[in-house]
Amino acid sequence: MTKTLDPRDDMLGRARVRDNAELEAYYDDLAKQDTGALWTVANDIEPWEPKAKSDPIIWRSADLRQQVLRALDLVRPEDAGRRVVYLRNPKRQDVSAACGWLFSGIQVMNPGERAGAHRHAASALRFIMEGKGAYTVVDGHRMELGENDFVITPNGTWHEHGVSEDGETSMWQDGLDIPLTNCLEANFYEVHPDDYQATNLPVDDRQLSWGGAGLRPETDKWDRPFSPLMKFAWEPTYEALRNYAKATDGSPYDGVIMRYVNPQTGDNPMLTMGAHMQMLRPAEHTKAHRHTGNVIYHVAKGEGYSVIGGKRFDWKKNDIFCVPAWTWHEHCNTQQREDSCLFSFNDFPTMEKLGYWREQALEDNDGHQIVEA
Amino acid sequence: MTKTLDPRDDMLGRARVRDNAELEAYYDDLAKQDTGALWTVANDIEPWEPKAKSDPIIWRSADLRQQVLRALDLVRPEDAGRRVVYLRNPKRQDVSAACGWLFSGIQVMNPGERAGAHRHAASALRFIMEGKGAYTVVDGHRMELGENDFVITPNGTWHEHGVSEDGETSMWQDGLDIPLTNCLEANFYEVHPDDYQATNLPVDDRQLSWGGAGLRPETDKWDRPFSPLMKFAWEPTYEALRNYAKATDGSPYDGVIMRYVNPQTGDNPMLTMGAHMQMLRPAEHTKAHRHTGNVIYHVAKGEGYSVIGGKRFDWKKNDIFCVPAWTWHEHCNTQQREDSCLFSFNDFPTMEKLGYWREQALEDNDGHQIVEA
Amino acid sequence: MTKTLDPRDDMLGRARVRDNAELEAYYDDLAKQDTGALWTVANDIEPWEPKAKSDPIIWRSADLRQQVLRALDLVRPEDAGRRVVYLRNPKRQDVSAACGWLFSGIQVMNPGERAGAHRHAASALRFIMEGKGAYTVVDGHRMELGENDFVITPNGTWHEHGVSEDGETSMWQDGLDIPLTNCLEANFYEVHPDDYQATNLPVDDRQLSWGGAGLRPETDKWDRPFSPLMKFAWEPTYEALRNYAKATDGSPYDGVIMRYVNPQTGDNPMLTMGAHMQMLRPAEHTKAHRHTGNVIYHVAKGEGYSVIGGKRFDWKKNDIFCVPAWTWHEHCNTQQREDSCLFSFNDFPTMEKLGYWREQALEDNDGHQIVEA
Amino acid sequence: MTKTLDPRDDMLGRARVRDNAELEAYYDDLAKQDTGALWTVANDIEPWEPKAKSDPIIWRSADLRQQVLRALDLVRPEDAGRRVVYLRNPKRQDVSAACGWLFSGIQVMNPGERAGAHRHAASALRFIMEGKGAYTVVDGHRMELGENDFVITPNGTWHEHGVSEDGETSMWQDGLDIPLTNCLEANFYEVHPDDYQATNLPVDDRQLSWGGAGLRPETDKWDRPFSPLMKFAWEPTYEALRNYAKATDGSPYDGVIMRYVNPQTGDNPMLTMGAHMQMLRPAEHTKAHRHTGNVIYHVAKGEGYSVIGGKRFDWKKNDIFCVPAWTWHEHCNTQQREDSCLFSFNDFPTMEKLGYWREQALEDNDGHQIVEA
Repeated sequence: MTKTLDPRDDMLGRARVRDNAELEAYYDDLAKQDTGALWTVANDIEPWEPKAKSDPIIWRSADLRQQVLRALDLVRPEDAGRRVVYLRNPKRQDVSAACGWLFSGIQVMNPGERAGAHRHAASALRFIMEGKGAYTVVDGHRMELGENDFVITPNGTWHEHGVSEDGETSMWQDGLDIPLTNCLEANFYEVHPDDYQATNLPVDDRQLSWGGAGLRPETDKWDRPFSPLMKFAWEPTYEALRNYAKATDGSPYDGVIMRYVNPQTGDNPMLTMGAHMQMLRPAEHTKAHRHTGNVIYHVAKGEGYSVIGGKRFDWKKNDIFCVPAWTWHEHCNTQQREDSCLFSFNDFPTMEKLGYWREQALEDNDGHQIVEA
Repeated sequence: MTKTLDPRDDMLGRARVRDNAELEAYYDDLAKQDTGALWTVANDIEPWEPKAKSDPIIWRSADLRQQVLRALDLVRPEDAGRRVVYLRNPKRQDVSAACGWLFSGIQVMNPGERAGAHRHAASALRFIMEGKGAYTVVDGHRMELGENDFVITPNGTWHEHGVSEDGETSMWQDGLDIPLTNCLEANFYEVHPDDYQATNLPVDDRQLSWGGAGLRPETDKWDRPFSPLMKFAWEPTYEALRNYAKATDGSPYDGVIMRYVNPQTGDNPMLTMGAHMQMLRPAEHTKAHRHTGNVIYHVAKGEGYSVIGGKRFDWKKNDIFCVPAWTWHEHCNTQQREDSCLFSFNDFPTMEKLGYWREQALEDNDGHQIVEA
Repeated sequence: MTKTLDPRDDMLGRARVRDNAELEAYYDDLAKQDTGALWTVANDIEPWEPKAKSDPIIWRSADLRQQVLRALDLVRPEDAGRRVVYLRNPKRQDVSAACGWLFSGIQVMNPGERAGAHRHAASALRFIMEGKGAYTVVDGHRMELGENDFVITPNGTWHEHGVSEDGETSMWQDGLDIPLTNCLEANFYEVHPDDYQATNLPVDDRQLSWGGAGLRPETDKWDRPFSPLMKFAWEPTYEALRNYAKATDGSPYDGVIMRYVNPQTGDNPMLTMGAHMQMLRPAEHTKAHRHTGNVIYHVAKGEGYSVIGGKRFDWKKNDIFCVPAWTWHEHCNTQQREDSCLFSFNDFPTMEKLGYWREQALEDNDGHQIVEA
Repeated sequence: MTKTLDPRDDMLGRARVRDNAELEAYYDDLAKQDTGALWTVANDIEPWEPKAKSDPIIWRSADLRQQVLRALDLVRPEDAGRRVVYLRNPKRQDVSAACGWLFSGIQVMNPGERAGAHRHAASALRFIMEGKGAYTVVDGHRMELGENDFVITPNGTWHEHGVSEDGETSMWQDGLDIPLTNCLEANFYEVHPDDYQATNLPVDDRQLSWGGAGLRPETDKWDRPFSPLMKFAWEPTYEALRNYAKATDGSPYDGVIMRYVNPQTGDNPMLTMGAHMQMLRPAEHTKAHRHTGNVIYHVAKGEGYSVIGGKRFDWKKNDIFCVPAWTWHEHCNTQQREDSCLFSFNDFPTMEKLGYWREQALEDNDGHQIVEA
């Protein structure tokens, strides 16, 4: 139990007890009573600043896509529950997380397939990568999905996914807070009593009702703690980004960046996770910052690279990478004439609600990291 | 002071004192001390239900437009402050209100004209009727205005209006809560120290930043108590209505109706006044209801009629009419193939915040009023 | 209609049209169409700053109490509804208000008397002046009332008042927003179907449940838009003031002042009206300020004077006086060894919710008004 | 990787893939790319309901107190940082937690001792067990502490503890969300630049200002995200419980229970942790329920037992025990004439904000658990 004291901790206000035989005997007695001496662990459990639990890592579409397609022949959705290849951060294998307490995976379905309806205490989102005819039904609201559409299936909602008979093999990224829900001992799971949801609501009724900016459908009663707009389609999102680019200098760290929000309240669309779409203008290279909270990025358009924790990660369309908590990161669009767009999701709402949000700009080297060789 | 007792008030819980000489003497003594006996006024100041202070009335464009145009030759904006013909409810002449505590007027400007910048504690809105090249500048944000656009100039903001040199004579309806602000002894007025606002923000920057549904411009800091989206243009509003019509049965009283909201919060765009755009589908005839709060309507599209307090008011494009508080009203689109659209503004936010909102459906006659001959 | 132009209005941004025959003819035409020219009224309805609608005035207990007691013999509560002498501001006789849009009156009851239960859209409060055994029942919650207790009977609640058989003749001040409710065309009135409320809740159950600071009764469900604590008793209020006096320098304008709040939310106890208890320390003379909103004061303890709009009003226990909107006022405790306490109620919540709150300190003369001779 | 399928999972909507050689090869390939097949872990990471991460456990004062006192001679506060024996749940040794993600320990100090000021992203609370003259200084506000007082030292505040020279050896329980803060990679730590805080504020100024129920000190500006009342003293808390007991039947699961709240907002006093004081009336035996979230109890008064997860834990004054997430629990006061009081703190605010709160009553056996032999 005796450990070497970090010189930085040799000060008033930190634990700097020098252990001795008498103390060791005391520690043994304490342990027998399910107790311990705080000063033996204090500096560990009260670090000067957070140390990320995850590695920065990239999953390249070139590799990933083929593996996902193999699953089409290997398992059926009705056996797999969901036919998903999940992203497993080397440091987070124990909790099946891609980064921090965020789960992510790639799901694939053939035309005519569908998976049974279920619900859980965890919240989920989807970002569509390819295909035609995919759909999601959330509490009876059916949404048709196309490339780069972002869809939510919040905490406690019945949901199911499928691809219509006349569609194409479809692939999308799933994001969930399952690791967080488990971590906080709060996950519940139910299978729909009828296997699938019946619905007679118009297709895309949520989008039709709530898709006008600054307009509230007066007779659409909505008292759920998540967004009544559950599909955020790519075209209006990209148009909004291009418009916003005309009116803003952008963020020094993120270029032109918009947050997906609940139009009824302006808050994040779900309680625990947030999401952004950001545009890096031609040749834009942002400055580095770091913050609490974890982020998983998906390249929606273009190509470039990000420097994360001093390492360079080159990316192009449909590559996925993560930025662990309190890790420096900056982005670069290597295209000279085209913009690049990054979709991302995160656990920022959790950080903010609990008072844990903190952010810092890199001051050295004009705001840019030294890239590891 | 002795009055006849309304038979409905002759019950426990109401004032039903029979006056006599002794009481009359008492009342005289009270009056000398700046007091009175509550029971002499109680039934008046505690009515069973509200009695509207305003008449239902219509201002027809056919009449109004010509009078407004006459003003172009009669006064200059720099002398008039604003070249406005205001709508004066016969019962509200003392407070210069169009209905309840709402002011409304029609403003007109020639190309090249502009009125000086000012600000006041009252909130204002505009609904554009005709012309080209009109603009409003609100706290440095310049907005270009076209037909049926809705614009806010909230409480405490510097604002000015004009028409560009290459524009056309332009006309719009103003709506303000000036009578309410005066009624509550809270009106302040200031002229801009430089007469006009200087600005180097991009034109329509608020619309460019906040015009995407379910999207928040992440770096646009906004902590004002009103909407950062200050222009609600007609085209996206009408498109939103048509979409919503595919997903809703509509309100029995108002057809397909959307409320203009602050996209940052989902609340009304300003603190005291709200606004709607509603679509009456071909041949739609709504049922009657009544509610506290006053409404001023502007026909944005189509033709039809409304029955208000038992009287029929036929309307077409750019006619303006009002519905006083707690007055039955229903609307009818007389076109068989086209929709009609009504813009309206109201004092509902005031009613709701103070706990005064109440609504009632007409039960008799299948929900329709008997129209006076 | 031609009026002399105030020199202060002879500037860009104000109306300064010189009328002529042509304009007069135009005005006549406008009037026929229920319209008018804004510039003929603009400077009036957009004043540079508010002008109070009420006079500052004092109602002295020495005068008032005797008149109120006379009413005991003149009318019965079951005939009067409530046996109340109301305070009538000379400028507000038309709306039966004491100040601004606030009603106030003095109610008196003999032992064994009670008035029937009713409810209304207006909110009410009571401040007990003298007597024993008085009680109020609000939605079934019975509260026993003593001197200087403050009680609320909010918007929409059934309520009734009485004095128990073994009590004493009791007198209290009522405060209501009836004039505001009428002004906003929102007053509704209902008599209780059973004349009186039946209840088997423990007496003072609201106080017993919510009377602990920083403590929420976990199983007391409460989703009403007003305070679950409906009686604010004098003893704990005065104790709180004395404690607070040890920790604060106080307000330069109000001495040691506490706001009555809803302990569930920290907001004002009712939607439209607020209330304070303030302590002027021995010989304390505050500085002058003015603000939007109207206030009615009741001297709960001690003696002194207030200067309101340049006039001095001397007061002692149970005197009542008012401060009209945007009127300078300052307070002085003339006792050298004892504190004085002022209870007051106001319309500040209305002002704040509508964005109309504004406040200004008097800068001249070291913050003190010149008192009129 | 092949596992036996739980029969309960052999259904549509769960993962029930039968592994084979081809799949095993696939899994190997996936692993090389930092990925995995969801269906191999799905049933584990999506359990039907939560399984507690902690054991129910009791730390008895009879054992604990002596060990804590030994520390007085073994370490000095200026070396230990804080002289604390912490409670270590057998299943949570890796995160030094007492239950779930909650840390707790017992701190002891001699007269004249004080520990240096520091601050951290974690929030802390204290419950005083014995002694005289103990104090805490939070952002310059000094609070004197007595037995059963509850004190908060929220997220980001400078704080330090000590015992005055003329006091007695003092002992208190600390509660912190350090494990949660670490789990969410958000812990920061700073030592005060001057080692100790200087302050000239009156002692207990927060209590003096905010200690009146339903009263807000008008001039005490407070815009922090935690309670301005930071000490909740025992006497008024116990008095409030006794009052509340006269007005409520209590909770079937918790007897007469009050939540400590921020009097400015009615919310929990800190962002991540909540706290209660509850009274079990003479001989009261509550029914069992379970809920998400973890709780650590401290016996403030009396004696009795709790049944937690089917095991009986007898307790008396100053014993500490925990109830892990989603574990049945019920309480019994074994005294026939005296009440027992339990202080407790929890992570409910975290659960509620993230939408993870869920609660269930035990239906069987008249709501009582079968106690393990």
